[in-house]
Amino acid sequence: MIRRNIKAGEGKEGFPGARGFYDPEVWAKVTGRARYGIDLALPGMLQGKILRSPHPHALIRNVDLSRARSLPGVRAVLSGTGLGAKPYGIVFDDENPLALDRVRYIGDEVAAVAAVDEQTALEALQMISVEYEPLSAVFDPEEALLKGAVTLHDDFPGNIAWENRINRGEAEAAFKDADLVVEDTYALPSFHPGYIEPISCIAESEKFDGLTLHTALQSPHIVREILAGVLGLSISRVRVISPVMGGGFGGRVYGNLKLYLLAAFLSRAAGAPVKMQLTREEEFTVGRPMVAAMIKMKMALKEDGTFLARQADIITDNGAYSAQAPWVSKTLSERNDSLYHIPSISTRVRLVYTNKVPTGQYRAYGNQLANFACESLIDRAAGKLGMDPLRLRLKNCIGPGDTSVHGLQIKSCALSRCLQDAADAIGWTERKKGRGYGISAAIHAGGSIVFNPDFRGASARARLELDGRVTIVTGEQDYGQGAHGAFALIAARALSRVPGEINIVSRDTILTPFSIGALGMRQTTIGGRAVQLAAEDLLARIRDCAAELAGEEVVPEGGAFRTSSGRLIEPVGIAAFYCAKTSGLALTGEGRYVPEKSDYDQSGYGNIAVTYSFAAHACEVEIDRETGALTVHRFVAVHDSGRIVNLLTARGQVYGGVAQGLGMACSEGYIFEEGRVANPTFSGYRIPTALDLPSIETLFIQTDDPEGPYGAKGLGEIVQVPTPAAVANAVANALGEPVNELPLTAEKISRLLHGWECAD
Amino acid sequence: MIRRNIKAGEGKEGFPGARGFYDPEVWAKVTGRARYGIDLALPGMLQGKILRSPHPHALIRNVDLSRARSLPGVRAVLSGTGLGAKPYGIVFDDENPLALDRVRYIGDEVAAVAAVDEQTALEALQMISVEYEPLSAVFDPEEALLKGAVTLHDDFPGNIAWENRINRGEAEAAFKDADLVVEDTYALPSFHPGYIEPISCIAESEKFDGLTLHTALQSPHIVREILAGVLGLSISRVRVISPVMGGGFGGRVYGNLKLYLLAAFLSRAAGAPVKMQLTREEEFTVGRPMVAAMIKMKMALKEDGTFLARQADIITDNGAYSAQAPWVSKTLSERNDSLYHIPSISTRVRLVYTNKVPTGQYRAYGNQLANFACESLIDRAAGKLGMDPLRLRLKNCIGPGDTSVHGLQIKSCALSRCLQDAADAIGWTERKKGRGYGISAAIHAGGSIVFNPDFRGASARARLELDGRVTIVTGEQDYGQGAHGAFALIAARALSRVPGEINIVSRDTILTPFSIGALGMRQTTIGGRAVQLAAEDLLARIRDCAAELAGEEVVPEGGAFRTSSGRLIEPVGIAAFYCAKTSGLALTGEGRYVPEKSDYDQSGYGNIAVTYSFAAHACEVEIDRETGALTVHRFVAVHDSGRIVNLLTARGQVYGGVAQGLGMACSEGYIFEEGRVANPTFSGYRIPTALDLPSIETLFIQTDDPEGPYGAKGLGEIVQVPTPAAVANAVANALGEPVNELPLTAEKISRLLHGWECAD
Repeated sequence: MIRRNIKAGEGKEGFPGARGFYDPEVWAKVTGRARYGIDLALPGMLQGKILRSPHPHALIRNVDLSRARSLPGVRAVLSGTGLGAKPYGIVFDDENPLALDRVRYIGDEVAAVAAVDEQTALEALQMISVEYEPLSAVFDPEEALLKGAVTLHDDFPGNIAWENRINRGEAEAAFKDADLVVEDTYALPSFHPGYIEPISCIAESEKFDGLTLHTALQSPHIVREILAGVLGLSISRVRVISPVMGGGFGGRVYGNLKLYLLAAFLSRAAGAPVKMQLTREEEFTVGRPMVAAMIKMKMALKEDGTFLARQADIITDNGAYSAQAPWVSKTLSERNDSLYHIPSISTRVRLVYTNKVPTGQYRAYGNQLANFACESLIDRAAGKLGMDPLRLRLKNCIGPGDTSVHGLQIKSCALSRCLQDAADAIGWTERKKGRGYGISAAIHAGGSIVFNPDFRGASARARLELDGRVTIVTGEQDYGQGAHGAFALIAARALSRVPGEINIVSRDTILTPFSIGALGMRQTTIGGRAVQLAAEDLLARIRDCAAELAGEEVVPEGGAFRTSSGRLIEPVGIAAFYCAKTSGLALTGEGRYVPEKSDYDQSGYGNIAVTYSFAAHACEVEIDRETGALTVHRFVAVHDSGRIVNLLTARGQVYGGVAQGLGMACSEGYIFEEGRVANPTFSGYRIPTALDLPSIETLFIQTDDPEGPYGAKGLGEIVQVPTPAAVANAVANALGEPVNELPLTAEKISRLLHGWECAD
Repeated sequence: MIRRNIKAGEGKEGFPGARGFYDPEVWAKVTGRARYGIDLALPGMLQGKILRSPHPHALIRNVDLSRARSLPGVRAVLSGTGLGAKPYGIVFDDENPLALDRVRYIGDEVAAVAAVDEQTALEALQMISVEYEPLSAVFDPEEALLKGAVTLHDDFPGNIAWENRINRGEAEAAFKDADLVVEDTYALPSFHPGYIEPISCIAESEKFDGLTLHTALQSPHIVREILAGVLGLSISRVRVISPVMGGGFGGRVYGNLKLYLLAAFLSRAAGAPVKMQLTREEEFTVGRPMVAAMIKMKMALKEDGTFLARQADIITDNGAYSAQAPWVSKTLSERNDSLYHIPSISTRVRLVYTNKVPTGQYRAYGNQLANFACESLIDRAAGKLGMDPLRLRLKNCIGPGDTSVHGLQIKSCALSRCLQDAADAIGWTERKKGRGYGISAAIHAGGSIVFNPDFRGASARARLELDGRVTIVTGEQDYGQGAHGAFALIAARALSRVPGEINIVSRDTILTPFSIGALGMRQTTIGGRAVQLAAEDLLARIRDCAAELAGEEVVPEGGAFRTSSGRLIEPVGIAAFYCAKTSGLALTGEGRYVPEKSDYDQSGYGNIAVTYSFAAHACEVEIDRETGALTVHRFVAVHDSGRIVNLLTARGQVYGGVAQGLGMACSEGYIFEEGRVANPTFSGYRIPTALDLPSIETLFIQTDDPEGPYGAKGLGEIVQVPTPAAVANAVANALGEPVNELPLTAEKISRLLHGWECAD
């Protein structure tokens, strides 16, 4: 398959040296040597545990800690009132490290204990008595919006955490004049990233100002700032060290702030390091999954298939607290509008508080949820028009040089090529009888320039070591996506070295430049560009130093330099010369990648990222008409992520993303009963195993993006976006029935086939 | 006492802000929060143990590891032949990580084991069978020099590891014309630094090229280079992390290289981290104490007390392997010659191999050993001349602007002032009957410029953090002497900040500039100067950035800047501005302190350091004429270490150094029986406890040195140098008998009093 793996252009395997490149991050993992956060231990370390609310909604009348405190082996016991901490949050300050007068979901943090071992800590939790006065609770976001519904947060009347309306063009008129209008309502449950390593941390508070936190994070620098704020510490006295990660997928951008804060407070109170870790059940019940969504969508088309307008009314279920859910809801409500030429858009999105698990973030920021609705509705329209869904898409594709309805400036784009190749690979024109075929496309932003308007880029340092190797110092994070390997390949290319000669230093806030971290497909695009610039800057400095050392002009030759008189000056000699000259300093280059400020306006119109990646997924499925069982036989994923840096890890990204997308399509999703998570285990919440996966064919259309390093673009998030819709469209194709709910369990499909409801 | 503690000049407490300054290093220790190397543990860590030779000298006929390897829980078993390692050493390559065909002392490393726990490792050692063929051994260095003595190393015929002869002026003639010639022979045993934390390490070898070593070191960068060389690794793939140290005193400049190498080899073989630690007994029997010395010395004087010449024949006992002993022997044989005006010098020093514990280094590089001989002989001469020993010294003192007999260029010097003040403080003129009084003086070099002629200085980086604090990044080490606190005070002074606003980053070779580390009183003088320059450089950059931010001229005001229009620009705002401007970089200043190259010549003549510190110690003792018991009633230490940076830690240095010097004078010292250490415990090797110590009065004469930061000079090593001689002179004064052996145990003093030998 490799043979067909890369199209149009250089480097079948990726950048020079990518073939057979040993990426230390990857090797550490596959050889079992990687030390994950959960493996860590510190001498004198205590174990921390959390007492959680059994009520979905209640007032706290009293918390009695005295008995727990008297238990031998207990070092610290905390309740909310004792902490005196300010409320905090990522978008709104709607949480407290520990509940004060009120709990808002089953699992809400009420008290915390640090003890010499886990058993003692758990015992102590039993000895804390809490008086609750239960309140009525609301679990359904639509009910939560009704007049007279109980309110979760006094600052948010009507339980609306966040709301947004967007109107572009003339939607209303377009719907009047349309030849065809299609509409439906799509429902998606909450999905959990399901990383294999549950979140854990060790916090070590210093006697005075100071905290060291060991926890695997995608954005250690951002988390450092938040913690410093809540804990009242100087930012530079907080050190966040991020060990190797057992999966993040967006769930570790901020990780579990509450866990970190409680570990820090407990460590401060106990005067010893405190380790805390979520159980798998806690991951599901108090972790931060993605919002559930209810998407009411309407589309207007011309007879010839031209898209005229789209209207959407979206409700996202926030759960009890917000985290990143407002940003997720915003991305979810907009991103797909820029995939095709759609002149008119009218969207309303409401993020609603309910007494359920608070939500956070999961790979692709909700783009995949709305993509399911958008791409399903397009197939519905194609059916009504009697038009090939592929042709309908191709007719409306956005392309290079276009500016989308929301103002996104598309530079490189191979969307239609992705669609065509996906169709070819799945055998669109010779579809077999008795099988269902589906296709869908996606756009995703790579490298946000609006996440923080004052901080749009990235920086890196490159250092020539005494052994002639080059060390890249970056604040970006490798969390399994292969960023460090990509940085090594980018730096090696800039320095004419082999990637094995590049060291990467990251994972520690006192070593590295400030960075937003691994989110929004920033790492290769923005982080990698900074690495390229740092390496280029270092090369220039090495060259000057070589000339000074040689006393004559030099020209680069491989990684070394040739003097006009023909001598070869090796990096190792240059490093020693500079070290002696400066009494110990290393030659250092700086890379500063600062993208242009966005024209983003009040209405949310404007360019939001440096690059945009595109993809089309297609698949072939079969339905057992008796049991409703769904089998995905073949899956094709075609991606435009610009120049591929490292084919091996790029393919890994696609496999992983498609697998997760198939999980959303077929088997995953939260099930709630009266606000309680009914399936908080991997047997109840079914992520696909290797055995559940079809053969996945990956193709890359290599465009040259002007912004990304050597034309590279982001890949990490988009890999999952078109997958659920592709499967849903294939199932609809097989059934001859529209599909508007995920996951497509045998039960749901049977219902569609036979119309019966299963007994509860 | 503080009242009288600092003379001549500003800052009774030291630099601005020193009073009540909270030094995080110190606080971590006194509050019990410091994590020492020996506390560390890593997940999956194995325990390493070493099989040692029971013979002082033997051939290895065979080593059988098979039974040990078969023991469950054993992960790696190594012998010398299996390693294939090259010989290594600090001055000569005279050691192997494990003995190959021959062992040379009781304790020589023969095999090493890594197992899941200590017990299993020890069991495995029992299961290794080694066939030895004993050889005759030599324990006395004078015997080792005799014709026909057994030879330890084929490359070193006659067992002379290193030899040096120095002749300056006209010694022979001087002795002919002298009015008085005095001579004696002085004997000193081997002394161990006796740091409270035994040396330990955790080595973690990567699957391919790479090693991380956790061990408390004074010179992590130098050790990194040595390890990389022996292990065949790229320097930058070796990371040395140095935790807080439980004492070093020169013994941790290189620590125990053999232990580190074996841990690394075991970790490589076992594929897991390996922890190794010396027991206290191993510290004494295989650690690296200072050489024992036999010093035959002769002095020529004029009637009026003018020193004419000194002649010395010195034998130092190397033990089985060299480490730093050649450098120690060189310092020992020369340094004291520069304390006074002595026109003619004739010295021979021989470092001799014996089948005993290999030697290394201990605070002051042997200067204190020769000081005992030199300063005792001066008292002897004073007696013969009927002259006050104080007056005799004052008459010959070296002073500022002088160049010594070996070419040392003395810039700042308050030697005679130190002597006079020490005499005044001890009450020299009104000495009580029945008590003994002694005085002695010392010189010590601060900041060697010949240790590595190409690397004479130090460098540092200073970084403005997002919270406005300043971080100093340095390769120098705080190992209890207060270097980090001193750096904070120096940087704060340069930046007009309070020292609490300065963070220090050190202890890790991937974070820090290359440095020689904490030896030869480099830290404050050379390291501190680099910190000052880095802070000054950063201040200039901050100022430029402030002007750019303000759009107008600015002038420094406290730690901030005032614009011409009167606005105050705070560092925190400047940091944010620069971070946004560069997409994440921090404003950074560089400090490069590169002292002038030395004029040091083949004969060893020339200046060797940037600064020279001076001291005079005086004490009052009492002898129990019946038991020979020695009581030191009062002790005065007067030091010229230039400007004092932090009085509290400076006094701590003096207390500690004097305590160790008193140990050498009164109770410490190795006892050997047939090459076996007879007193390898703290009950047998008696370091003074708090109860053994007299009241120690410390005075500082503040000179302004042109090289040191703000006039500061080194203090850490000289504090111990004059102590043994001061006590010995006081004892001789009390007895009316010369003293020429240390330690002055009750037994030795009784012998001097009553002439009897105690029974064995």
